[in-house]
Amino acid sequence: MQFTAQQIAGLINATVQGNPETTVSSFNNIEAATKGDLTFMGNAKYSEALLQSEASIILIGKDMVPDQPLKATLLVVNDAYQAFATLLEIYQQMHVQGLKGIEEPAFVSESAKLGENIYIGAFSYVNNRSSVGKNTKIYPGCYLGENVKVGENTILYAGVKIYHDCVIGNNVIIHAGAVIGADGFGFVPDKSGVYKKIPQIGNVIIEDDVEIGANTCVDRATLNSTIIKKGTKIDNLVQLAHNVEVGEHTGIAAQAGISGSTHIGKHNMIAGQVGIAGHLKTPDRFIATAQSGIAKVSDKPGQMVGGSPAFAMRDHLKSSAVYRRLPELEKRIAELEKALGERKNG
Amino acid sequence: MQFTAQQIAGLINATVQGNPETTVSSFNNIEAATKGDLTFMGNAKYSEALLQSEASIILIGKDMVPDQPLKATLLVVNDAYQAFATLLEIYQQMHVQGLKGIEEPAFVSESAKLGENIYIGAFSYVNNRSSVGKNTKIYPGCYLGENVKVGENTILYAGVKIYHDCVIGNNVIIHAGAVIGADGFGFVPDKSGVYKKIPQIGNVIIEDDVEIGANTCVDRATLNSTIIKKGTKIDNLVQLAHNVEVGEHTGIAAQAGISGSTHIGKHNMIAGQVGIAGHLKTPDRFIATAQSGIAKVSDKPGQMVGGSPAFAMRDHLKSSAVYRRLPELEKRIAELEKALGERKNG
Amino acid sequence: MQFTAQQIAGLINATVQGNPETTVSSFNNIEAATKGDLTFMGNAKYSEALLQSEASIILIGKDMVPDQPLKATLLVVNDAYQAFATLLEIYQQMHVQGLKGIEEPAFVSESAKLGENIYIGAFSYVNNRSSVGKNTKIYPGCYLGENVKVGENTILYAGVKIYHDCVIGNNVIIHAGAVIGADGFGFVPDKSGVYKKIPQIGNVIIEDDVEIGANTCVDRATLNSTIIKKGTKIDNLVQLAHNVEVGEHTGIAAQAGISGSTHIGKHNMIAGQVGIAGHLKTPDRFIATAQSGIAKVSDKPGQMVGGSPAFAMRDHLKSSAVYRRLPELEKRIAELEKALGERKNG
Repeated sequence: MQFTAQQIAGLINATVQGNPETTVSSFNNIEAATKGDLTFMGNAKYSEALLQSEASIILIGKDMVPDQPLKATLLVVNDAYQAFATLLEIYQQMHVQGLKGIEEPAFVSESAKLGENIYIGAFSYVNNRSSVGKNTKIYPGCYLGENVKVGENTILYAGVKIYHDCVIGNNVIIHAGAVIGADGFGFVPDKSGVYKKIPQIGNVIIEDDVEIGANTCVDRATLNSTIIKKGTKIDNLVQLAHNVEVGEHTGIAAQAGISGSTHIGKHNMIAGQVGIAGHLKTPDRFIATAQSGIAKVSDKPGQMVGGSPAFAMRDHLKSSAVYRRLPELEKRIAELEKALGERKNG
Repeated sequence: MQFTAQQIAGLINATVQGNPETTVSSFNNIEAATKGDLTFMGNAKYSEALLQSEASIILIGKDMVPDQPLKATLLVVNDAYQAFATLLEIYQQMHVQGLKGIEEPAFVSESAKLGENIYIGAFSYVNNRSSVGKNTKIYPGCYLGENVKVGENTILYAGVKIYHDCVIGNNVIIHAGAVIGADGFGFVPDKSGVYKKIPQIGNVIIEDDVEIGANTCVDRATLNSTIIKKGTKIDNLVQLAHNVEVGEHTGIAAQAGISGSTHIGKHNMIAGQVGIAGHLKTPDRFIATAQSGIAKVSDKPGQMVGGSPAFAMRDHLKSSAVYRRLPELEKRIAELEKALGERKNG
Repeated sequence: MQFTAQQIAGLINATVQGNPETTVSSFNNIEAATKGDLTFMGNAKYSEALLQSEASIILIGKDMVPDQPLKATLLVVNDAYQAFATLLEIYQQMHVQGLKGIEEPAFVSESAKLGENIYIGAFSYVNNRSSVGKNTKIYPGCYLGENVKVGENTILYAGVKIYHDCVIGNNVIIHAGAVIGADGFGFVPDKSGVYKKIPQIGNVIIEDDVEIGANTCVDRATLNSTIIKKGTKIDNLVQLAHNVEVGEHTGIAAQAGISGSTHIGKHNMIAGQVGIAGHLKTPDRFIATAQSGIAKVSDKPGQMVGGSPAFAMRDHLKSSAVYRRLPELEKRIAELEKALGERKNG
C-alpha cells in the first residue's frame, strides 16, 4: 500500500514540510531507510543519520527540524516517536480491517451465531452452536469445534484450532497453528503398566486482551477449566497443561512449559524454555529466568529464580560462577589434603 | 447436550432418588458444581460438601446416602467413582460418535479405501492409495499423503498432517496440528560446509492404542521406519527424530525431544523438556526426570536419572544440594588454605 | 510404485546381471531387505549379508561381484553407494514431480502471480499480490498472506502458514505446520504492568536452499526483516524470534530457540533444545551443544560451548565431572576442617 505525505499528515496531525505528494510504502529505522520508506527522528537535531538519510519521509519533532534543507519530505509533529508508533498501529490494523464476510468455501454451521462485521476465511470451519463476536476476524483454515465461544474484536490467524466448548474473550489475538483445548495428558496405568485414558471433559477459557503465539498448545481441563487471565501474553511453542491457570498481565516466552494444575500468579515473567512442575502456585511478580526448572516455589512475591532445579537467581549466579572453577577447587582440596598429610607424616 | 437423571440412571444402572426429570449438561467436582452440573460423592456420608452442594445431580454410593433430604437428585450406585468415570467416558465419546460421512468439501482420492462408519471432515485431504479403517474419525483440515494407512476406531483431530507411506494403527488418537512423517533432519556437509540433503524415504509406524499430543512431530525414517509401539502416550510439542523407536506403554511428556536412531524401552517415563541424544538405547522402566539431558545410558532397567548431562537421580539431587552451597564451600577452602598457610608460616 | 531392474539400470547406468524383469517397490539396508526391496553392497565381496540377502535387487560395485550365483538380480555399477544415493534422490523427487496444477477447491487471488509448472493443493490459500515461482509445489492446506513471494523449485508441505509480506527463496523446503512471519513477541508494560503491543510490521526473508522443519516458527521483524540465509537447515519445533538473523550454511536442531535480534554466524551448529538470549552475535563456526543456554558469547570463531549458562565445552565437561563428586568434595572439606581443628585444639 502506498501513501502520500499529505495522507499520513492527516492521520497524525502533522505539518508537511516539502513535497506533500511524496509517497512511501513501508517503514524503517533512519539508518536503513531508503526511497519509499518512512522513518522518524527522535533526538539529535543535526545528526549524520538525519542529514544522510535516504528515507522519502521523515517524522520529526518540531524542535528537531534542522535549518538546512533535506532530501526527504518532513512531517513535523510534537512527538516523533509517539507519532511513529501510532502509524505502525494504523498500518498493522489495516491488514485486518479490510477483512469482511464469509469467504467461500467455508463451513459454518446453521446453528452458529455470527456477530456483525466479522470475517471467516476460506477453509475455516465453525461447528454447531459456536459463536463469533462482532468485528472478529478468523483467518483461513481455522477450526472451531462445537459450542466454541469467540468474543469481539478478536483475531484468529490461519490454522488456529479450538476444540469444543472452549471460550475465547474479546480483543484476543491467537497466532497461526495454535491449538486450544486438546485433551490434557491424563492416563492411569493399570497393574501391568498399560495406560487407561482419563477423559478430559473440561474446557479452556481465554480472557480478554490475551495474545497467544504460533503453534502454542493450551490443553483443556480434566474437569472445570484451564484459564488464561486478562492481558496475559504468551509466545510461540508454549505448552500449558490441563487445569493450569495463568494470572493477569503475565508474560510467558517461547518454548516454556507449565505442567498440570499449576497456577501462575499475576504479572509473572516466565522466560524462554522454562519448565514448571505440576500443582505449584507462583506468587505475583514472580520471575523465572530462561531455561530454569521450577520444582517448588515459595509464596514470596517478586522473587526471581534461576537454574534447574531453580532457586534464588542471585544465589544461582554465584553458584554457577563457582561451578566454572570446580576443577580448580578440587585441586585445591587435594593440595590441602596433601599438605595436611605431609604434616601428619612429617 | 442435556440429559435427565432418568436417562443417566439407565447408562450406569443407578436408582433415582428425587426428581427423575432433573436435567444436567455438564460435570464438576462437588465443591464447584452448580445448577446443571452432575457430580459424585465418593466417601464421607454427611460431609459439608454433600449437604451444601448446588449440583443438580449427585452420583452416590449406596452406603453413602444420607438420611436427611438434599436439594439434588441422587443417583445411587454401587461405586460412585467408577460410575462417574464411566459417564465421563460416555460423554467424551459422544462428541465423536455422532460424526459420520464425508463432509463437503473434502478431497478424497478415488483410489482411497474407506471403511464403514467413518467420518472425514470438511477440508480434509485423503490422497491416492490411502486407506481409512472402519469407525475412524478424521476431523476437518487433516492431510493424508499418498499411501497412508489409518486403522480402525482411530481419531485424527483437526489439522493433523500425515506424510506419504506412514501407517497408523487402531484405537490411536492424534491431536490437532501433529505432523507425522516429515523428513528426518539428515544432511551431509561438503568440504566447504554446504549441506546436501540425505533423502528420507522411510516412513513412520504408529501401533495400536497410541495417543499423540497437539503439534507433536514424528519424523519419518531415513530408511525403514520410525516406530511408536503399542499403548505409548505422547504429550504436546514433542520431537521424535528419524529412526527413533519408542517401546510399548511408554509415556513422553510435553516438549521432550528424542534424537535420531535412539530406541526407548518399554514402560519408560520421559518427563517434560527432556532431551535424549542420538543412537542410545534406554532400558525398560527407565525414568528421565524433567529437563534432564541424556547423553549416555546404562542398560540397567528401572533406573531414574536427572540433570544435564544426566546421571542417577539420587546422586543428582545430592550434587544439586551442594551446588547451592558452592560459594560457601569455596570460602571454607580459602579459610583452610589460610589456616594452613598461617601454620606453615607460623 | 514398482520398477524393474531394467528400468533402474537405465537411471544409474548399470549392467543387469540376472532377471531384468525383477521388480522392486522400496529400499532397505542389506540385512533388513526382503522380497520387493532394492539394496546396495558397498564393501566386502563375499560377506554373509550379501550371500544371504533376501533383497530382490542388489546394487553392487563392479569389483564386488561374487563368482557364485545369488538369488538377487544384480545391478553392477562403478560406485554402489553413490548409485544408491542417486536412486534415493530420484525416488524422493518422484513424489513431488507428479504434482501439477491447481487442485480444486483452492483459493487463489486474481492478483496472485503464478509461475509455470506449479502445484497448489486443495484447501490452500494464496492471497492478493502473492507470487509463486515456477516448479514450486504447495501442498494442501497452506496459507500465503498478502504479498508473499515464494521462489522457484520450492516445496511447502501441508499446512504451512506464511504471513503477509514474507519472502521465500528458491529451492527452499518448508515442512508441514511451520509458521513464517507471525508477530514478534513485543510488548511494553505501562506503569501498572499492563502490556501494550508493539506493532510488528517487518517481515521474514528466507534465502535459497534453506530447509525448515515441521511446526517451526519464524517470527516477523518489528521493523526490517528476520533473515535466514542461504543453505541453512532448521529442524522441527524451533523458535526464531523477531529480527533474528541466521548466517549461511548453519544447522539448528529441534526445539532450539533463538531470542530477538540475535545474529547467528555462518556454519554454526546449534544443537537440540539450545536457548540463545537476545541481542547476541555468534561468531562463524560456533557450536552450541545440546540444551546449552547462551547468555553471552565471545567473537572467537570455531568455539564450542556447553552448559546453562554456557561456557567452553571443554571446561564445562570438566566442571560437570566434578559436579557429580560434589557431595564427596564437601565431605573432604569437612574432614580437612576437622583435622585442622583437632590440631589447633590438640
